[in-house]
Amino acid sequence: MVSNLNISRRKLLTVSSVALAGLSVNQLLSKAHAQEIQKSVAFSLPMIDTVVTPDQGNPIRLNFNENALGMSPSAKQVAIDAIPKANRYAKAEMPLLNKRLGQHHSVNEDQILLTAGSSEGIRSAIAAFVKPDTQFVIPELTYGDGEHFAKIFNLKINKVPCLPDWQIDLNGIKKAVESHQGFSIVYLVNPNNPTSTVFKTNELELWVTSKPKNTIFIIDEAYAEFVNNPEFYSVDSFINKGCDNVILLKTFSKIHAMAGLRVGYVVSSPDNIKNIAQYVAGEKLNYCGVCAALTSMNDTHFLAYSKKAVDVSRNIMEQALSELGLHYLKSETNFMFHKSPIDLKQYRELMKQNFILIGRDFEPATEWCRISLGTPGEMLYVANVMRELRQKSAI
Amino acid sequence: MVSNLNISRRKLLTVSSVALAGLSVNQLLSKAHAQEIQKSVAFSLPMIDTVVTPDQGNPIRLNFNENALGMSPSAKQVAIDAIPKANRYAKAEMPLLNKRLGQHHSVNEDQILLTAGSSEGIRSAIAAFVKPDTQFVIPELTYGDGEHFAKIFNLKINKVPCLPDWQIDLNGIKKAVESHQGFSIVYLVNPNNPTSTVFKTNELELWVTSKPKNTIFIIDEAYAEFVNNPEFYSVDSFINKGCDNVILLKTFSKIHAMAGLRVGYVVSSPDNIKNIAQYVAGEKLNYCGVCAALTSMNDTHFLAYSKKAVDVSRNIMEQALSELGLHYLKSETNFMFHKSPIDLKQYRELMKQNFILIGRDFEPATEWCRISLGTPGEMLYVANVMRELRQKSAI
Repeated sequence: MVSNLNISRRKLLTVSSVALAGLSVNQLLSKAHAQEIQKSVAFSLPMIDTVVTPDQGNPIRLNFNENALGMSPSAKQVAIDAIPKANRYAKAEMPLLNKRLGQHHSVNEDQILLTAGSSEGIRSAIAAFVKPDTQFVIPELTYGDGEHFAKIFNLKINKVPCLPDWQIDLNGIKKAVESHQGFSIVYLVNPNNPTSTVFKTNELELWVTSKPKNTIFIIDEAYAEFVNNPEFYSVDSFINKGCDNVILLKTFSKIHAMAGLRVGYVVSSPDNIKNIAQYVAGEKLNYCGVCAALTSMNDTHFLAYSKKAVDVSRNIMEQALSELGLHYLKSETNFMFHKSPIDLKQYRELMKQNFILIGRDFEPATEWCRISLGTPGEMLYVANVMRELRQKSAI
Repeated sequence: MVSNLNISRRKLLTVSSVALAGLSVNQLLSKAHAQEIQKSVAFSLPMIDTVVTPDQGNPIRLNFNENALGMSPSAKQVAIDAIPKANRYAKAEMPLLNKRLGQHHSVNEDQILLTAGSSEGIRSAIAAFVKPDTQFVIPELTYGDGEHFAKIFNLKINKVPCLPDWQIDLNGIKKAVESHQGFSIVYLVNPNNPTSTVFKTNELELWVTSKPKNTIFIIDEAYAEFVNNPEFYSVDSFINKGCDNVILLKTFSKIHAMAGLRVGYVVSSPDNIKNIAQYVAGEKLNYCGVCAALTSMNDTHFLAYSKKAVDVSRNIMEQALSELGLHYLKSETNFMFHKSPIDLKQYRELMKQNFILIGRDFEPATEWCRISLGTPGEMLYVANVMRELRQKSAI
């Protein structure tokens, strides 16, 4: 296996003529900027000489918010080494990950529950709080899994309209809870998906710590590690202060680039964890995922690299979108949400013809498009395609 | 990675003096028999020169019904090759596995649902049929996951006593269903765990195809590929004849030796699958597991080897148990259930002191012990330890 992190620094700084050929001045500026950022982290960012050449069989996948870098090299190796042992259940390894995650969030081990990705976390956390006359309160535009499972559990879905530019209306959500007689499950994704924006944790903290009755908060922080906005902080700080009305959902799919290994977890009070644990499939997680997660957590160089690469990719996309006059939301994640220049379906089709797969419809924001941030090299290609499409007046 | 299947045939047939040292005549007979079986399959069985030397840090794990051989070499390689791509969801690969499983069971693709191991299959299949006044009918001694989830869903548990030697009383179970006014979920594991025995599929077929009203059958065939008894056949044959009251649960954890990769699936009618699919965590399974499962299914040599190795191991254990006069049930799986020679806890402790981990308590059969079948080399060691313990009058 050749890791894309092994490219030598000298090679990185050589911009090939092939790569240069299709690039605009703006793109070269982005490259210069990328090199600056590159110097600031220990890892070599393979963003310069990897201008991608996608084709039909190998398109640029910007439709699932995956991390295009691939896992940390050390986590990859550990996962590979785990394969010959994967005839066994990860009985001994799961408690180690549990313990490490407890340390990471400054909570006890019994406040962590491992789940098969965050999908299982969402389902089991909701299942644990289904009671008669329960409403499921969400912003009108957010990640769909919560609503999906809440419907299956026959909860009343209460969608609270967003503020302009799809900002989450925390006050509106609060009112929706206060005006309901029964139990409320509030599901908030911060940063939000598909909008890529954050709300201020401080405002949530005031509400949560006021202990509103009959209310549980499920806070999904899948993308937290990408955030630059200092007004965001994790709700793990409420939990380790003893707040028992908050359930934090996390995943190794994003900053750790382990989407295919299905490792997620729940952080909450010991009682909540005991309750939610009843609704997970079993105490079994995949061996490679558990081992890789443990290693990836300690690979601080990779995590810094993963964050920085997204910053560079975002910068490339921001420049392209600004240049094309396409309104976008301030992204705090590894994806961006922008006004579609044409009908979204046609836009998607045009991009697909150029071997770029972009986000599906996100109702009710059907005039907006979500594009995941691939590697800087991929985003340079994407930006170029968008500019070409504009030159042809196609977008 | 060195595969234990790569040992040359010449080396296999050389019994080292170290290995010979601790062996009894009976064990050498077992070895001769093992060699005979070895000749009958294409794979070299590494059972002769791998007499294990366990220690505290590396005990023989015979307590979770894992497959000690490890995955098929081809599946291992595919899983390793999948790691660098495991930053992606297995969106393209899952449908391929779905299709292949449909072919395998002679059903349509929409009659297969992939699950994270069979644990998720059990939970979701039960969840899909929870109705008011539902009873969950099981033999008094069977795999515990069904009862575990049924309790969480507040179902009434109806345990039907077993016949002598823990044989499943299908007639008794039928009566329990007929005497209940509401809905019944019948959960049967065939071959059963922890007893390792089968019931005749034919008797179940007569009952199922009579379409008893208000009844769904969840049949767990995790160990089916190890069965030698010709009176067992899979209920997939009912399903592909159109029976819509049967849910078959399968796993890659046993014959495929992929316990740590968490791949299982459900086979049923398209409507049942649609219903059950609502209760799984998401349409996401781990990338390595999906790829390895696809490859392992086609590795018929390995599957034959996996089966034969268990046959040899079983033979070694049967000889040892007979020699020690310990009553055991006719095993059709990769584990055996025998009368504990002493108090089970003490027995477990004695074995542990010899670096052998054996099964936990299975109530109400607290005088019985489940021992998973490891490799033949491991079972030779186990048999030897048991004989030594007898010589010391410890068991």
